[in-house]
Amino acid sequence: MENQQAGIASTAQGGVASPRGFRAAGVSAGIKANKGLDLALLVSDVPARAAAVFTTNLAIAAPVVVSREHLARSGGTARAVIVNSGCANACTGDEGLQVARDMAAETAALVGCPTEQVLVASTGVIGVSLPIDKIRCGVPAAFRALGADQGPQAARAIMTTDPFPKESATQISIGGRPASIGGMAKGSGMIEPMMATMLGFVTTDAAVPPPLLDRALREAVNDTFNAITVDGECSTNDCVMLLANGASGVEVDESSYREFVGGLTAVCRELALGIVRGGEGATKLVTVIVTGGATSADARKAAKAIANSPLVKTAIHGGDPNWGRLIAVAGRAGVAFELSRAAVTIGSIVLFRNGRPYDEAAPQAAEYLKGKDLTVSVDLGAGRASSTVWTCDLSAEYVRINADYRT
Amino acid sequence: MENQQAGIASTAQGGVASPRGFRAAGVSAGIKANKGLDLALLVSDVPARAAAVFTTNLAIAAPVVVSREHLARSGGTARAVIVNSGCANACTGDEGLQVARDMAAETAALVGCPTEQVLVASTGVIGVSLPIDKIRCGVPAAFRALGADQGPQAARAIMTTDPFPKESATQISIGGRPASIGGMAKGSGMIEPMMATMLGFVTTDAAVPPPLLDRALREAVNDTFNAITVDGECSTNDCVMLLANGASGVEVDESSYREFVGGLTAVCRELALGIVRGGEGATKLVTVIVTGGATSADARKAAKAIANSPLVKTAIHGGDPNWGRLIAVAGRAGVAFELSRAAVTIGSIVLFRNGRPYDEAAPQAAEYLKGKDLTVSVDLGAGRASSTVWTCDLSAEYVRINADYRT
Repeated sequence: MENQQAGIASTAQGGVASPRGFRAAGVSAGIKANKGLDLALLVSDVPARAAAVFTTNLAIAAPVVVSREHLARSGGTARAVIVNSGCANACTGDEGLQVARDMAAETAALVGCPTEQVLVASTGVIGVSLPIDKIRCGVPAAFRALGADQGPQAARAIMTTDPFPKESATQISIGGRPASIGGMAKGSGMIEPMMATMLGFVTTDAAVPPPLLDRALREAVNDTFNAITVDGECSTNDCVMLLANGASGVEVDESSYREFVGGLTAVCRELALGIVRGGEGATKLVTVIVTGGATSADARKAAKAIANSPLVKTAIHGGDPNWGRLIAVAGRAGVAFELSRAAVTIGSIVLFRNGRPYDEAAPQAAEYLKGKDLTVSVDLGAGRASSTVWTCDLSAEYVRINADYRT
Repeated sequence: MENQQAGIASTAQGGVASPRGFRAAGVSAGIKANKGLDLALLVSDVPARAAAVFTTNLAIAAPVVVSREHLARSGGTARAVIVNSGCANACTGDEGLQVARDMAAETAALVGCPTEQVLVASTGVIGVSLPIDKIRCGVPAAFRALGADQGPQAARAIMTTDPFPKESATQISIGGRPASIGGMAKGSGMIEPMMATMLGFVTTDAAVPPPLLDRALREAVNDTFNAITVDGECSTNDCVMLLANGASGVEVDESSYREFVGGLTAVCRELALGIVRGGEGATKLVTVIVTGGATSADARKAAKAIANSPLVKTAIHGGDPNWGRLIAVAGRAGVAFELSRAAVTIGSIVLFRNGRPYDEAAPQAAEYLKGKDLTVSVDLGAGRASSTVWTCDLSAEYVRINADYRT
């Protein structure tokens, strides 16, 4: 039952350094103009099994190229992850690649491990060179600051336009023995993953063999990070990395795989929803549930279309129960759709069903939409498949943030 | 040469009633709460050949259903088009269908033609009943107001959130004899056609046999109305209708088809660009040119992705030459893309080419972006195909308009 609880709620305090045998740090290396925290380091006391999912964007940033190479060369083993914010090191050519490699080498020298056991990530403006001299000063400072209590600083150091840090941790129990899973993530623009648009780092002190680790990460990410969208964008840099160092002595195998995935999904879900809540200009978290899909792919496609629709997102921002926009998006989503059997429900209030509006319920729905945590449901009337995605509203603040990002 | 001029510029005054044998009207029927013009009527003195393209949205509005039926039953012949704004008559079930049929019947009785020779269109809020009593009073008023000089009133009567009416007309010459093409259109939210998201009405006094008329409309629409986007939405109602009444005595056949398509495309382009210029909250018209596509479909897909990207649209709104966002969208557009051969040009200023940023040109590009009529070009580095689409910037005003539309 413990694992089931872990799968439902994940309210434990903690973050990426909560599992045994991990330490973290977050320091200011002077990459951000405002001198804020901008360099995070995560170290496992022993080599950890590592799995990762990367952006699907074809304009791949240098740190993604390097992390992929290192994972392949190390056979999926990592001791450390070095992450900077304030500069994406993307579209920076061969020079950018060299900087990403240097970041890993500097870290490896201090940690005392092969370079390929260091993973690298960057986030920030695209097309600007990452100053290697600042990294060379910053990495030793981060190494000196490492601590099991420094997860919150690391979570802050990976932020860009995020309004708050995202951390999560949970406990699982396997064969009566406890293990921990912890993580941190950042958004908050260019968020429509398909592993593309944010950074997530998850640790566990369970021992998980490589094929299970990879499968668990993909499964958890599909229902969490890949089910959120802020603006439908997909960035050049982003990734979710999972390190398992076995420090708890707990071993995950096929028989305990579901327990592990349950806990991992809980942590990933909390981080992913944190990204949506902290989406650029967001004032509301919106759960979009699509039912009645002919296939799961149809349901997911329609849910994504609704979650990315500027007309839906502005209506929700304005508290307008404009179910017509939801129907219109479902109708243009490129999936099977049957208007005469379709339905729209806002919260638990039916506004459209069987081809008939229920506008008398509109005032009640408008009242519901004043909340901060909303659910909108659309039935496609075409089958039995369903999908859930999460998004936020679209505010004038989103425009302000993105019109002025670099100026 | 005249036809070529028509294909390039379309500066003639006039609109939907400019071609001989057409009259138009725009009146207030009380459908809009603000008592503005909301009912337009277009009548041809004689039965005209008619072609139309309709929304691809599966949540088809009642007037679209009825207009399709009428075109099929009449064998592509129409005497009149009746259009209301202020109510989309979409998602209104059987009752809505009856209202659309009644609109056509009322009009047919006054014009003196079979009901199936009347086409119907509606635009406005989805899911609200269209009051038939107001239509019954409004149609005779519109009929009485018909005039060859009333095109501007008709163009105003089909507006919803449009900031200005969209009219265009041009002259073509076939075998030394002149014929006219005129049109009107409305936007301005839910604009990413694939014939979905706006209303367009085009008339000509040339005689065009049905297969050529249909082909010409599809060809012209593909490069104009289907190449614009305001917000990536696709509505339940929209259509472009083309009526050819032959009143000029000029006959179009295969040998003069290109002349006709040139003029038709010029009129459609001016109307389509008017929709983008008048897009909700728009302050800039942006021409997005994608080159280097592996296929035409790839180039169009990437151009649409760029034109719909909220991060690109907000950057342009803020005058930020953020070429990294253009590269990031090209990389996630789901098309062949080669970063090392890709390029970004803003106006004529190269900001990224062959994997290298040219940030020294950024101030010059920022200056260029202060203009109102902008071109951004992205080379995918993957082939030789190209595509042009038009979009507008994304402003806080867009959010304001759409957060408050019904309230």
